[in-house]
Amino acid sequence: MSPAPRVSTERDTRPLGRFERFLLNRAIDAMGHPPFSFVLWSGETLEGAPGRPSRLRLHLRDRRLLREVLRSRDLAFGEAYVDGRLEVEGDLVQAIELAFAAANRAPRWARAVSRLLTWHSHLNPRSRARRNVHHHYDLGNDFYRLWLDERMVYTCAYFEQPGMSLEEAQVAKLEHVCRKLRLRPGERVVEAGCGWGALALHAAEHYDVRVRAYNVSSEQIRFAREEARRRGLENRVEFVEDDYRKARDACDAFVSVGMLEHVGPAHYRSLGKVVDRCLAPDGRGLLHFIGHVYPIQMSPWLNRYIFPGAYIPALSEMLPVLEPRHFEVQDVENLRRHYARTLEHWLERFEKSSEQVARRYDERFVRMWRIYLSSSIASFHEGTSTLYQVLFTRSGSRAQHRLPMSRADLHAGS
Amino acid sequence: MSPAPRVSTERDTRPLGRFERFLLNRAIDAMGHPPFSFVLWSGETLEGAPGRPSRLRLHLRDRRLLREVLRSRDLAFGEAYVDGRLEVEGDLVQAIELAFAAANRAPRWARAVSRLLTWHSHLNPRSRARRNVHHHYDLGNDFYRLWLDERMVYTCAYFEQPGMSLEEAQVAKLEHVCRKLRLRPGERVVEAGCGWGALALHAAEHYDVRVRAYNVSSEQIRFAREEARRRGLENRVEFVEDDYRKARDACDAFVSVGMLEHVGPAHYRSLGKVVDRCLAPDGRGLLHFIGHVYPIQMSPWLNRYIFPGAYIPALSEMLPVLEPRHFEVQDVENLRRHYARTLEHWLERFEKSSEQVARRYDERFVRMWRIYLSSSIASFHEGTSTLYQVLFTRSGSRAQHRLPMSRADLHAGS
Repeated sequence: MSPAPRVSTERDTRPLGRFERFLLNRAIDAMGHPPFSFVLWSGETLEGAPGRPSRLRLHLRDRRLLREVLRSRDLAFGEAYVDGRLEVEGDLVQAIELAFAAANRAPRWARAVSRLLTWHSHLNPRSRARRNVHHHYDLGNDFYRLWLDERMVYTCAYFEQPGMSLEEAQVAKLEHVCRKLRLRPGERVVEAGCGWGALALHAAEHYDVRVRAYNVSSEQIRFAREEARRRGLENRVEFVEDDYRKARDACDAFVSVGMLEHVGPAHYRSLGKVVDRCLAPDGRGLLHFIGHVYPIQMSPWLNRYIFPGAYIPALSEMLPVLEPRHFEVQDVENLRRHYARTLEHWLERFEKSSEQVARRYDERFVRMWRIYLSSSIASFHEGTSTLYQVLFTRSGSRAQHRLPMSRADLHAGS
Repeated sequence: MSPAPRVSTERDTRPLGRFERFLLNRAIDAMGHPPFSFVLWSGETLEGAPGRPSRLRLHLRDRRLLREVLRSRDLAFGEAYVDGRLEVEGDLVQAIELAFAAANRAPRWARAVSRLLTWHSHLNPRSRARRNVHHHYDLGNDFYRLWLDERMVYTCAYFEQPGMSLEEAQVAKLEHVCRKLRLRPGERVVEAGCGWGALALHAAEHYDVRVRAYNVSSEQIRFAREEARRRGLENRVEFVEDDYRKARDACDAFVSVGMLEHVGPAHYRSLGKVVDRCLAPDGRGLLHFIGHVYPIQMSPWLNRYIFPGAYIPALSEMLPVLEPRHFEVQDVENLRRHYARTLEHWLERFEKSSEQVARRYDERFVRMWRIYLSSSIASFHEGTSTLYQVLFTRSGSRAQHRLPMSRADLHAGS
């Protein structure tokens, strides 16, 4: 249940016109009669599934909304929600999941057109990469501190054991990544896109490795350096405020958690080149990223308001990072359900701080983050989003002699 | 050390001509001066790496060989070895590994030309699929019994524990596959390409499931049915002598071990369609296949003499089985080194039976299988061949509720 809207809009009380009624009925048909009640700006109510009572009520407070949604479903839905022109009464996540299920019935040509219309947003030269990242990650550490775990890990956690807290599951994720990389004392690690530094610090502290960690977000780098000092790790971890493409450091392990989404397909080969330049002959690499089950554009709303320049690749689309350089996939693990659970924790914490966020930013900002987190949960539950960890080495059996013959060691402690 | 050649060829004792010497030196240059001695038909010996003494001696017993190898390295090498026009003194596997290392230095255009010249061999209509499979698998169960394990498993074993015998490692592989599929009593399994039936029988016996297993090889089906009767499993396993594309059976698990290599890329989408037709909403699928680290043609010699119509896909090339039907990859495991070890067991057993094989077939046949098994070991050690197990479900978190949140259960017993 999401809170009542606190954003007022002018009310238009004229009843539904004949053409509007036709459009709305078409939309309800196309969605396969979802169990929503549509409460219109005029006060009139239409049942999506007549005869099946619903606890989900969509308040359409603006007559323009109807045409906008039909023109660009996802974008208009998100924008209207943030504006408060659309309100959801009932479980927001559940409402979006039902909408996703309906969207999956969309014909192929509609997806092709959507892809065509948004292709230009994925060109990602370095200057724009920096700007895109600032957009999201430089909102202020204080903001993220309100709802992330204490280590500020803004990527999928690993709920290795039932009942783990978010804090425990994030540590379990850091461990899982370090274990997969089979880190040994004294080894050199390069991390591309290190966030607030949790993985680099964990690896240095618990695996006694030396880490060079790249990030273009000044806010995050500042926080990470401070943490390194506080934990006495500044001699073992170097946080570099620069693009990962500058990395030239020889390393035994190359890791990137939650960065590939921001790289863009046009740059996958150059990422492969960077890894090839850095990785030792028996080195291990790990990419942890949000993937799509098949090639499909990400939500245009997310792309415009939350992650400009981002692209979520299908596995087939990300392999150009590895195959052209003859890197060999060793292990792929799908953690989709772990991300849904991670996001549920974030949303719960976010809602607890929402008044504070509204005071610092405004109500629109709160609604933007609420719909972003909620739609992400829905997408990991029911949609096309998934989470992949891809472990790789150079090619050949000699290149992988540092990996054991089975993966049993990854689960030895559980 | 491979046995001395028993195939005589006419000897040509004329010395190396000027142009031939030029060609041979070019070849030695291109291979980066491998530590071979080349013993020519004339009795003359050339050192690949002058100054570095070698225990590997390549006997070139035929002057035509030189030009043939330069024209089509792999094909000519294999053919000449089988003919006895080429003999390897020393470790055959090691010699081929060195040759592979040399081949990796070949320029890209050479690979592109090779691909162009062999593309037509991958068209694979049903009638040819049947013929291709007969070529290899209907050599007679007695032949395979000489060097496979007692269950007649002709796919990569899983040496889960150090020191496992081939027999134990094949059972461990069957277990590993059944565990990954999370089979439960009473479930229905479809197996596409079941070989001699070991997996189908193991699953029925130890997981109490019902299996329909497809295979176009009459010899194998006959053996499998007999086994089912002998073990009292004929009510739970049905061996169907037909193309997997005929499968229409609803199932909870769809599995294929060592068949994708024979399907051909043109048919990947139709394989996906078959799975889509059969698999329950919460079903699991597993494909176990030889893969390449990146897209590259398989050895033309293997393609002509051992596996006509086969194609070894890179991961990026096999995803069209899954992505167009929105199947979601859950787990990819690379078992490359397990296949090298499996093949070492096979080669050792084969050599023990080689006189028997020579009596039944002929010496050429023995040499053909020797070079096939040896070059396969080399390819899994040092080349571009790998072994993938890809576990998948339908898309969404609800489709995968039958999978636990972590993979720890796969290794609980080890």
